Amino acid sequence: MSLLERVKTCHFWQPENYRPFIINNEIHGHIAHDLATKLKDFNTVFNVSSQSVTLSDKLTTFESRTGEVESAIKVLVKEGIIPRWRDEEYAVTNSWHLPPLLKMDRGASGHFGIRSYGVHVNGLVKTEEGLKVWIGKRSLAKPNAPGELDHIVAGGQPYGLSILENLIKEAEEEANIPQAISSTAKATGMVSYRCERPDGLKNDHLYIYDLYLDESFIPQNMDGEVEEFYLWPIEKVIDRITKTDDFKYNVSLVLIHFLIREGYLTPDDDIYSDLIEGMHRQAITS
Amino acid sequence: MSLLERVKTCHFWQPENYRPFIINNEIHGHIAHDLATKLKDFNTVFNVSSQSVTLSDKLTTFESRTGEVESAIKVLVKEGIIPRWRDEEYAVTNSWHLPPLLKMDRGASGHFGIRSYGVHVNGLVKTEEGLKVWIGKRSLAKPNAPGELDHIVAGGQPYGLSILENLIKEAEEEANIPQAISSTAKATGMVSYRCERPDGLKNDHLYIYDLYLDESFIPQNMDGEVEEFYLWPIEKVIDRITKTDDFKYNVSLVLIHFLIREGYLTPDDDIYSDLIEGMHRQAITS
Repeated sequence: MSLLERVKTCHFWQPENYRPFIINNEIHGHIAHDLATKLKDFNTVFNVSSQSVTLSDKLTTFESRTGEVESAIKVLVKEGIIPRWRDEEYAVTNSWHLPPLLKMDRGASGHFGIRSYGVHVNGLVKTEEGLKVWIGKRSLAKPNAPGELDHIVAGGQPYGLSILENLIKEAEEEANIPQAISSTAKATGMVSYRCERPDGLKNDHLYIYDLYLDESFIPQNMDGEVEEFYLWPIEKVIDRITKTDDFKYNVSLVLIHFLIREGYLTPDDDIYSDLIEGMHRQAITS
Repeated sequence: MSLLERVKTCHFWQPENYRPFIINNEIHGHIAHDLATKLKDFNTVFNVSSQSVTLSDKLTTFESRTGEVESAIKVLVKEGIIPRWRDEEYAVTNSWHLPPLLKMDRGASGHFGIRSYGVHVNGLVKTEEGLKVWIGKRSLAKPNAPGELDHIVAGGQPYGLSILENLIKEAEEEANIPQAISSTAKATGMVSYRCERPDGLKNDHLYIYDLYLDESFIPQNMDGEVEEFYLWPIEKVIDRITKTDDFKYNVSLVLIHFLIREGYLTPDDDIYSDLIEGMHRQAITS
């Protein structure tokens, strides 16, 4: 059954292709060998060995770590080794609730394999014909996953905002949802995964919310990131996830989380336990 | 915060106190050293080394494994090494959907540390004052967790029944819920854990269902296993789980799973990710 393929996609990475990225004696990411070798150029910032990359322990403050790492990343972007400077700041921390050790541009986060955080919102409508789900088609102009199917609202978690503040901001930008509505979104869980993607090693925690919308509400994209919105019966969503990979890989994971919670999958499905254990970073074994 | 303590309780075990129990080259359980030593008495059934206990590979069929292991367990019960013969059969399998390798009496399952399965049902009532939850107080006569707080319906998964068939059977026995109502229960997920308890090493998968009941429905215990039922506001349930360990340890885990799904906990709670990752067998790290 293809749902299990969707989950496996989110957990595929090969540790042997990476070196741990260590800050303060803790692993905070994984760096591919080529980039690790290149980081030897910045020997006041990184200590590179064949086994690991360690952030210099002379960088003891949030500010000094942020400044030195940023300077190095800007050189790497200029040289085309890291493709994009995104001008969005991510906190570097192994737990969203701990003070971050530094902040890092989002364009570099996958290349350092740091843990990053995001918020995904299921846009749901109860109708007489049954449950429907708002699905966005990502702009064809997006460098990342153009044209793939997405949630009504989803976004990376920037440094300095709470999860709910970010949800409210993204809901406004992506779907023109006013705060009075978006703030009614209900927290329903989290998925985590680590996998190799074109933009690096994604090591993500996604916080999931369900937002029930009136039938009269029509989302409208404000920031050019969504090509079109569709309101699909849940059965069509299930069919599409099961038979295609049209949904962005992590959107599939969040939708499967929804199907589990809402009883569309049951213990009678023989992949039930594997799907559930696949909601988190540990790779599923079968 | 005590919710994290509740979750940690479900994952506490010390692997060094056990030897793996191996069938067909796969680990299917863990056996404490004392019992492992004792199993040397049954050398046509078990091969005991200092590192493991292996079921004899001369036992190649479901019937022969079941028969030989049962004979050994009956001796162990007679000698008081395993306290109870429960006369309920558990399937021995690492996945509920695989054909079991043998069946084993429930009274021995914890002593062999085999994976066992169960079904837990949240009995829920939407009222004008808010959500209420049916809570059972376990009979003081129960050998296991007497007087502790429990779900309206919960039970181990016997060999030969589907999960839903077992739910319907237990709903009838424990709370006098007719099949027309119990069969509307919605599958909402699964928790798994391995922990040391008085009755052995519990290595459980619990399938979770939500059952919404009319306000007019009053549960009634039929099998003497429940002392009394209470209908509590969800806030009282949360207060009791957070401040006491009055709930049976695994019932707490299932209730926390509910609180996560239903938005009573949010990413703003600093233990959110740890609680979510603690819903599964992997031990939480903090």
